[in-house]
Amino acid sequence: MEDEMRESGIDHEADRNTKNTNGKETIKEEEEEGGEIEESVERIFESREVPSWKKQLTVRAFVVSFGLSILFSFIVMKLNLTTGIIPSLNVSAGLLGFFFLKTWTKVLHKSGLLKQPFTRQENTVIQTCVVASSGIAFSGGFGTYLFGMSQRVAKHAGDSYLGFKDPSLGWIMGFLFVVSFLGLFSVVPLRKIMIIDFKLTYPSGTATAHLINSFHTPQGAKLAKKQVRVLGKFFSFSFLWGFFQWFFTAGENCGFSSFPTFGLRAYQYKFYFDFSATYVGVGMICPYIINVSVLLGGILSWGLMWPLIETRKGHWYPADVDPSSMSGLQAYKVFIAVAMILGDGLYNFCKVLSRTLSGLFVQLRGSNQRTGLPLEDPPSPFSPKLSYDDQRRTRYFLKDQIPSWFAVGGYVTIAVVSTATLPHMFPQLRWYYILVIYIFAPILAFCNAYGAGLTDWSLASTYGKLAIFTIGAWAGSEHGGILAGLAACGVMMNIVSTASDLTQDFKTGYLTLSSPRSMFVSQVIGTAMGCVVSPCVFWLFYKAFDDLGLPDSEYPAPFATVYRSMAKLGVEGVSSLPRECLVLCYAFFGAAILINMMKDGLGNRWGRFVPLPMAMAIPFFLGPYFAIDMCVGSLILFVWERVDAAKAEAFAPAVASGLICGDGIWTLPSSVLAIAGVKPPICMKFLSGATNARVDQFLQSSP
Amino acid sequence: MEDEMRESGIDHEADRNTKNTNGKETIKEEEEEGGEIEESVERIFESREVPSWKKQLTVRAFVVSFGLSILFSFIVMKLNLTTGIIPSLNVSAGLLGFFFLKTWTKVLHKSGLLKQPFTRQENTVIQTCVVASSGIAFSGGFGTYLFGMSQRVAKHAGDSYLGFKDPSLGWIMGFLFVVSFLGLFSVVPLRKIMIIDFKLTYPSGTATAHLINSFHTPQGAKLAKKQVRVLGKFFSFSFLWGFFQWFFTAGENCGFSSFPTFGLRAYQYKFYFDFSATYVGVGMICPYIINVSVLLGGILSWGLMWPLIETRKGHWYPADVDPSSMSGLQAYKVFIAVAMILGDGLYNFCKVLSRTLSGLFVQLRGSNQRTGLPLEDPPSPFSPKLSYDDQRRTRYFLKDQIPSWFAVGGYVTIAVVSTATLPHMFPQLRWYYILVIYIFAPILAFCNAYGAGLTDWSLASTYGKLAIFTIGAWAGSEHGGILAGLAACGVMMNIVSTASDLTQDFKTGYLTLSSPRSMFVSQVIGTAMGCVVSPCVFWLFYKAFDDLGLPDSEYPAPFATVYRSMAKLGVEGVSSLPRECLVLCYAFFGAAILINMMKDGLGNRWGRFVPLPMAMAIPFFLGPYFAIDMCVGSLILFVWERVDAAKAEAFAPAVASGLICGDGIWTLPSSVLAIAGVKPPICMKFLSGATNARVDQFLQSSP
Repeated sequence: MEDEMRESGIDHEADRNTKNTNGKETIKEEEEEGGEIEESVERIFESREVPSWKKQLTVRAFVVSFGLSILFSFIVMKLNLTTGIIPSLNVSAGLLGFFFLKTWTKVLHKSGLLKQPFTRQENTVIQTCVVASSGIAFSGGFGTYLFGMSQRVAKHAGDSYLGFKDPSLGWIMGFLFVVSFLGLFSVVPLRKIMIIDFKLTYPSGTATAHLINSFHTPQGAKLAKKQVRVLGKFFSFSFLWGFFQWFFTAGENCGFSSFPTFGLRAYQYKFYFDFSATYVGVGMICPYIINVSVLLGGILSWGLMWPLIETRKGHWYPADVDPSSMSGLQAYKVFIAVAMILGDGLYNFCKVLSRTLSGLFVQLRGSNQRTGLPLEDPPSPFSPKLSYDDQRRTRYFLKDQIPSWFAVGGYVTIAVVSTATLPHMFPQLRWYYILVIYIFAPILAFCNAYGAGLTDWSLASTYGKLAIFTIGAWAGSEHGGILAGLAACGVMMNIVSTASDLTQDFKTGYLTLSSPRSMFVSQVIGTAMGCVVSPCVFWLFYKAFDDLGLPDSEYPAPFATVYRSMAKLGVEGVSSLPRECLVLCYAFFGAAILINMMKDGLGNRWGRFVPLPMAMAIPFFLGPYFAIDMCVGSLILFVWERVDAAKAEAFAPAVASGLICGDGIWTLPSSVLAIAGVKPPICMKFLSGATNARVDQFLQSSP
Repeated sequence: MEDEMRESGIDHEADRNTKNTNGKETIKEEEEEGGEIEESVERIFESREVPSWKKQLTVRAFVVSFGLSILFSFIVMKLNLTTGIIPSLNVSAGLLGFFFLKTWTKVLHKSGLLKQPFTRQENTVIQTCVVASSGIAFSGGFGTYLFGMSQRVAKHAGDSYLGFKDPSLGWIMGFLFVVSFLGLFSVVPLRKIMIIDFKLTYPSGTATAHLINSFHTPQGAKLAKKQVRVLGKFFSFSFLWGFFQWFFTAGENCGFSSFPTFGLRAYQYKFYFDFSATYVGVGMICPYIINVSVLLGGILSWGLMWPLIETRKGHWYPADVDPSSMSGLQAYKVFIAVAMILGDGLYNFCKVLSRTLSGLFVQLRGSNQRTGLPLEDPPSPFSPKLSYDDQRRTRYFLKDQIPSWFAVGGYVTIAVVSTATLPHMFPQLRWYYILVIYIFAPILAFCNAYGAGLTDWSLASTYGKLAIFTIGAWAGSEHGGILAGLAACGVMMNIVSTASDLTQDFKTGYLTLSSPRSMFVSQVIGTAMGCVVSPCVFWLFYKAFDDLGLPDSEYPAPFATVYRSMAKLGVEGVSSLPRECLVLCYAFFGAAILINMMKDGLGNRWGRFVPLPMAMAIPFFLGPYFAIDMCVGSLILFVWERVDAAKAEAFAPAVASGLICGDGIWTLPSSVLAIAGVKPPICMKFLSGATNARVDQFLQSSP
């Protein structure tokens, strides 16, 4: 689910961003891709030498990447553990990478030590490495399947008897190392087909490439510097704001994050603005329709359904259970959200799959009307039909080959190692389950990479859910099916997610004349970084915040519960649900499919006003408070666009990234403080008038 | 004191504002006044007919004035009762008057009912009326002498035995009606000497005239409309912010106004940002040096002196007294502030008086070098020496005469009525005290009007203090000298304050071709409005907020205590002060004079960096929290000026006025709510970590 949100976020945001940073060029480029050649980006860069693939991989690039990957791991981890909505950080990665390396080279230039100028290929290497590394923070499942195995979530869901496995730094790193590299090898042989032959769009990758290209033209560098300055300003503001807020959080329900902005009664139903700079920033990056959907979902659930279901207390579910128990209201919240997510996921899976298959069918039939490039007759890179840009790009893309035997050999080797070691980590996950996954995985990885190329929509988590249900059911509840399912989900998700990410990077590399070899190496190094950094960051959160993963805590990790519930549904069936819950689940499952059909049926003109069921489902579980943050972000952007559209377009992504990054990196000192046992000095408390009078009396009587 | 702050505020702000709204014209005008004639404002207006004085006084102007005078009375009253710092509201009055009447005429024009176009003369009438009316809210002494008579302040100061007189709507209105009109009559005969012969500057009046002139040129109207829009935006924001804050103030020390921004320890010493939109706005309007002075004073007193004096507890003053008792630390706070205010007042009194006398001397000697207009030989208005503008203005100014017999007759009549009635209100104030005041008053009124014309610095409150000491000492403590002194202060202040205000208005009228008659009538009507509106507004505050006038309350009315303390000092001497307090008072009295001498001695280049002792003294009593608000306002302005100086100059006064007006008018519904007994629902409380733990335990044990 968060996966789809994530990609959809990237999609719109990246599109928007391309237009900003190099407005004219994008249009040019789009026209080129539409077949008409007007002006050329590559002519601008013609005079600049393209370094060899080894020279693209500089030590300084990986030093900067490592720093940024820690930053982004914190941000992604925080988002994972709060709501699971992860906006695109590609733009920030590109911007900050440019900024740091530019500063670096400037300093070296002054000291006379600069041996090699900063090229766009190097910038692409950084961006690829950072995205690969912080991608692990997402696909590692710290907010989903992996944390869903833990005792804390199991206990809270009331199904510890189905088995649990608490996180520990050792096995998490090992697990990530054996599963994360397979995806890379699975798509390497297909890169030429995807990029050159099929000419797939990959909107995110294309957008990032435009951004990087624009940074390295003189005019672009100027705008980029301005954007970085804005980003830096809002970064500092957001960091300081997080710091300031911290002082007032001595105790539970203290501080700005518990501010009953709309009154205490609305606060009970989680309608409040929690002053989170992160989600205001997320709201600015996400398209309006996502923000509106989230708010609508929140109003529907916490404003309407849960209060109504509460009146059935004692009838539909026992009156004496804890409000957060899975036998009470909580079950409705989780399972209705799961139903809606599955409905939406199923619809989009079918949609993307059908487009994938029909696209493939068209390609293989040699109908070259759409792409102009039949597979049977791969064009010579010097074909007169191609534009100058395409010729040059294709030549560089095909120059450095990665041999197929290397890719296949790598895949088989890692698969063997992984099949041998994983059952030791998860005894419930038999070796033959893994083998089956690894046989089907390359096909699914291809499907996902192809689908992402067409729609920018990665379905990694949907494939993961598929694995939960199939492997879970295969293992059965008595053989620890719940753990087997969750672990299988991890194996599957890592493969398909890295596959689509790497193909995006190949596209970026293609458009920036970066070598596929350097892209591949960068992705491998980035993934390795991620396998070390992400578990460490997670570990910091896990140790620092004792209530991590519990609802109503600062870090509820909502999707851990959702994933575990799905696994439970897979192995146990629907018998354990409270009354009427199943009916509601069916209704919302159907509604999700219906809404999607409506959205597609109405076409772009009216369909864009139809909310996204996926986005609507998130607040079902969490409450609408973050939706209010996001809508505040939307509102700011909306007003800004009305006041000064040009400035808003150019700087809104930088402002949003600054807000997100600053608040994200504040969690580093904040968790260090928590581990060190430093308590904030003040509690900003919100009491009703009557309670306040009693407290005042109490404080006067015993000062 | 607040008086001087007020005028000084007007001075800089008005200057700044003139440059904004009609940058070019101001320079022109200044050059004209310097003797060189370049372009002419009046030529632009040549084609427009100047209405007769009766036509300048329209019913619609007074309807708009009445509405605005209620608005500004609220604002001035709020400022009176919180800190006593009152920035210039002339610009807001001019802007809003223009806006409302423009809207009105537009609507009428559309409906075809408009009989008379909106002229700048009418705008001047509104501005004059509003300033006269809201001036009463200041010179009525609701935050100073009048409220200083009340039992509440007396009780708190521990000197109820010296007599008190509680406010009541009846006698306040009566008192204002008999004392407020005298000033008007006292300067009427002198207007030609001041404006035409002496050609005094009257910076505030000149600035207001430029503003009004610029509004009525097509280009000026456009900018004015933009400014009004900005003002409206910030007005709404500030009003809504006040409204929002209200919800969180159920109980004492609740809400944003008790936000321990810099921690709980700093809060104890009143170092915190209290989120007051009013004082952020005031900070934006006041010159930087005032804000810095206020902050410096706050740091010196609450950061240094009071904590040090506290360590002498038990030695210098009894350890067992209430912290707010006048026998404890409070005495140091009040009397050191009084000493500093008196020192500064004395210095400026001498300075302005010497300039007044030397100026008069030069004028009367016929030395016409500076003004070009010897008194003995009044120039013909059509003298070839005068610029076109001056000729035209002089002609219109001299067209409508106010006969001297009318002015003298009016003065004598009111003086007789007042001498007869005042002793019935204040038996302590004998009729011969009043007679003496009325004999000297016209001279002092002239001095004040002349001084204000030269320096823009009205010394009304200094003359008031003079009355407190002289009449108080004459009556003696056993004959209720404290009340006699405070009442005499009121009589004196009203005369001299309205005298300088009216002369400013004559200058504005001169520059906008408004008739002196219409100015006079407008001021009379405005004063009458003020005599009704101000007491009613005060009454609303007095009834709504039970703790009005007590330190640590929302409305401490600091100068009520200061004025009463001065009166006490006058009748009782310095014997009642705690140990070392007198020494400190002498030191600060001397320091105030020394700092002022330094300021003047250093010249404009370095002298402008020397703080104002007057401004430094205010936080001695109140604490530095409002200084922090004001510095935030300064900081915003400073950053804005760096980022976009032109925009900042044009819109900062509008933003500041919006912030002040919105928050000010919110006090209307807020006091109505308080009177109706509606309590805010939530308390935003700030507890230390330890206290919070105890409170949580208490709330859990007895939910």
